[in-house]
Amino acid sequence: MLKNHRIKAPFFEIGPKAYLFGDEMVSLAKTIDAVARKYDVRVIVTPQYTDVYRVARETENILVFAQHMDSLPIGRGQGSVLPEAVKAAGAVGVMFNHVERQLTIAELKACIRRAEDIGLYSIVCADSIAEAQAIAHFNPDIIVCEPSELIGTGQTSEVEYVKATIDAIRAINPDIQILQAAGISNGNDVYDVIRSGAEATGTTSGIMKAADKEAMVEEMLCALRRAWDDAH
Amino acid sequence: MLKNHRIKAPFFEIGPKAYLFGDEMVSLAKTIDAVARKYDVRVIVTPQYTDVYRVARETENILVFAQHMDSLPIGRGQGSVLPEAVKAAGAVGVMFNHVERQLTIAELKACIRRAEDIGLYSIVCADSIAEAQAIAHFNPDIIVCEPSELIGTGQTSEVEYVKATIDAIRAINPDIQILQAAGISNGNDVYDVIRSGAEATGTTSGIMKAADKEAMVEEMLCALRRAWDDAH
Amino acid sequence: MLKNHRIKAPFFEIGPKAYLFGDEMVSLAKTIDAVARKYDVRVIVTPQYTDVYRVARETENILVFAQHMDSLPIGRGQGSVLPEAVKAAGAVGVMFNHVERQLTIAELKACIRRAEDIGLYSIVCADSIAEAQAIAHFNPDIIVCEPSELIGTGQTSEVEYVKATIDAIRAINPDIQILQAAGISNGNDVYDVIRSGAEATGTTSGIMKAADKEAMVEEMLCALRRAWDDAH
Amino acid sequence: MLKNHRIKAPFFEIGPKAYLFGDEMVSLAKTIDAVARKYDVRVIVTPQYTDVYRVARETENILVFAQHMDSLPIGRGQGSVLPEAVKAAGAVGVMFNHVERQLTIAELKACIRRAEDIGLYSIVCADSIAEAQAIAHFNPDIIVCEPSELIGTGQTSEVEYVKATIDAIRAINPDIQILQAAGISNGNDVYDVIRSGAEATGTTSGIMKAADKEAMVEEMLCALRRAWDDAH
Repeated sequence: MLKNHRIKAPFFEIGPKAYLFGDEMVSLAKTIDAVARKYDVRVIVTPQYTDVYRVARETENILVFAQHMDSLPIGRGQGSVLPEAVKAAGAVGVMFNHVERQLTIAELKACIRRAEDIGLYSIVCADSIAEAQAIAHFNPDIIVCEPSELIGTGQTSEVEYVKATIDAIRAINPDIQILQAAGISNGNDVYDVIRSGAEATGTTSGIMKAADKEAMVEEMLCALRRAWDDAH
Repeated sequence: MLKNHRIKAPFFEIGPKAYLFGDEMVSLAKTIDAVARKYDVRVIVTPQYTDVYRVARETENILVFAQHMDSLPIGRGQGSVLPEAVKAAGAVGVMFNHVERQLTIAELKACIRRAEDIGLYSIVCADSIAEAQAIAHFNPDIIVCEPSELIGTGQTSEVEYVKATIDAIRAINPDIQILQAAGISNGNDVYDVIRSGAEATGTTSGIMKAADKEAMVEEMLCALRRAWDDAH
Repeated sequence: MLKNHRIKAPFFEIGPKAYLFGDEMVSLAKTIDAVARKYDVRVIVTPQYTDVYRVARETENILVFAQHMDSLPIGRGQGSVLPEAVKAAGAVGVMFNHVERQLTIAELKACIRRAEDIGLYSIVCADSIAEAQAIAHFNPDIIVCEPSELIGTGQTSEVEYVKATIDAIRAINPDIQILQAAGISNGNDVYDVIRSGAEATGTTSGIMKAADKEAMVEEMLCALRRAWDDAH
Repeated sequence: MLKNHRIKAPFFEIGPKAYLFGDEMVSLAKTIDAVARKYDVRVIVTPQYTDVYRVARETENILVFAQHMDSLPIGRGQGSVLPEAVKAAGAVGVMFNHVERQLTIAELKACIRRAEDIGLYSIVCADSIAEAQAIAHFNPDIIVCEPSELIGTGQTSEVEYVKATIDAIRAINPDIQILQAAGISNGNDVYDVIRSGAEATGTTSGIMKAADKEAMVEEMLCALRRAWDDAH
């Protein structure tokens, strides 16, 4: 966890994964950049490693994060993602333990500490309340909660699970910021999750699969701003 | 294997692995670029993913290769190295199966085909003659040979193992180019391996750990040219 | 590859994977044992590691193989499958590189050699002709061919792909035995693949998902015998 | 975590890893069995998968644990270690997340739950206080603590780190039993760690590399009994 570097709420994460790259990625990043400024919201964007430099260089407001990095030190490591290289390219943070790139417990702990040591934010994915609690002991800056065990049970409202994860994580470390991701597919979804008490949310497919990606960025970030203002 | 894209001999591979990144990487790449032109030799450089764009953009003669990529298609895949993203960043090829980033047989086959389909060179590492033969069936553009089973046996000369690997690979696919890597630590080593019959060689630590990296680039590429001219 | 240990044709492989275990596994193994003797055919059975000892001890004709093993030497290695332990439990061979348990090239090579050194048969899975050729360079005792690239193309008959894989492997090492697996679900399938020129075939789901496993063992091994006699 | 199945203190874990197998493993297990009864202590033994059945069958007092298992359900899974197969072979528990066999967070959570569901003890390794706390949220029956961050700092006594880990884990779940492993190489080491407040300890190399393994089992289990009696 970085000292004195709390991200100002509300914030949002847009994850291009392997959907978008190169010129189209840079172009969308510029749109996100402008819309983020317009609504005064913070947006984390996680491009492919090869696009980190360009996205960081051609935007001003976006928080560029790598999709992953390894904990190795400078030296050997063909095919690795070196923390210092990620930072030198302009990233300010890194995502860890996404369900598509899971880490062992020891490696996650090492990665979070490595990020902290060189001045990168760490944002870590958790797919249950127990995982979120476990991860909280390693003091990442942000935990992404998508508590699969509660989704779809019918008897659980969004408000309840947002509250449950917040309480669980804060009981361990109240300084960890929490991003609630739960199948966000339009502005209404963004509005609802923020009104449920979240300070942040995000999406991949909601924007990557939208017919008009730029319009969806506008819709979601506008809703983020409006929900936050209505709630506070 | 790309059609009609044979790399003109002699050529050389410089692998920064996780030793070098950012501005220093770009700076060394510019030196390599100039020295490669001076001696009319081809040089493959494999920077960290995050440096591919910068190195490709700021050099003219270097063949920029990624240190690895995944075979996944455009879409999901957090933390992946998407082939299309690697190419869009300016890479012209990719290295596979380095001992520090080994692949399963099925994934190696898929990666080589993926590279071919989008127009990237594939260079694949093999640590024995049997491995080199096995890999040759997947038709990569280049195989890196460092036959550990022969090194250090005493009764095997460099000339013999260079010849053995060349014969073994050519018996399967004579179009595959072969890079002989064997603890190259100075210009004399470069000279000797090329005089042994190789058309290419390379190094990581020989340059990365050199007191003066730029001087070592000059020494090795000069030796590469001289050995090739003396041999042909 | 073991010396002078060719398995007498025709032979068959039954792979319980994680479908069957404990008393039911032992019971089915006894049935297989009796049916194999009745029809004078060789049958490889690959139980869970924990069942190797019991199956080996309570049968006489079955060739008990482990589902996988690691190449590590005696010593450290929590959670490993030690080759010497597999052999001590009564296994006579090991399967490698099943699509559900893929190996890197270097590890596959090491495993085959390790098996040979301690006197275990190695049977290696290949899902294309190129993979089968690649694997042949490591000299396993048996290669399992299920050339996915040819299946379902319509224009390719079973006879043709069986012949193509046999020719491809024999061109590299004519001593490797070849098992043709291709969606065997009943005795007719067994009959057809053997009449196509195969000396061996096998199944998992054909028996594991049969309403009456024991009856299916009888049906398949009977067809194996009949096809072989009709063909030779 | 199993209900009402607390292991009676003091207890001990002997991990053969890949050092011992077959007849020698069974022979040592019989000695451990007799010595455990003599001193009225509980001993967990974790043989190779292939030896689980024999060790379980030929001993009476030993708690036989597998060195690892996978979380997969009955069905496909070549090369897997099926939980139901481990139990059917006679194991009463399973070890997870040893440094030589690390798990992702999601897989560890799934494995512990799978063990609980079919009635197997789970014992999970943690190499720091933060890891032990994280793992405690998944409610294993036992956590193995070897807090590498405290070892060798000079200023930290064994008494202190034993106490620190106990406190940290109990703050999360007081029902988790704790095994303190810290380079146990003879009876004195066993005595000291138990007198420091531990209810359990264990070793691999202390016994596996002993000149006389049986004598060392006697020495260590005797010290375990004596330390426990002196402390309570």
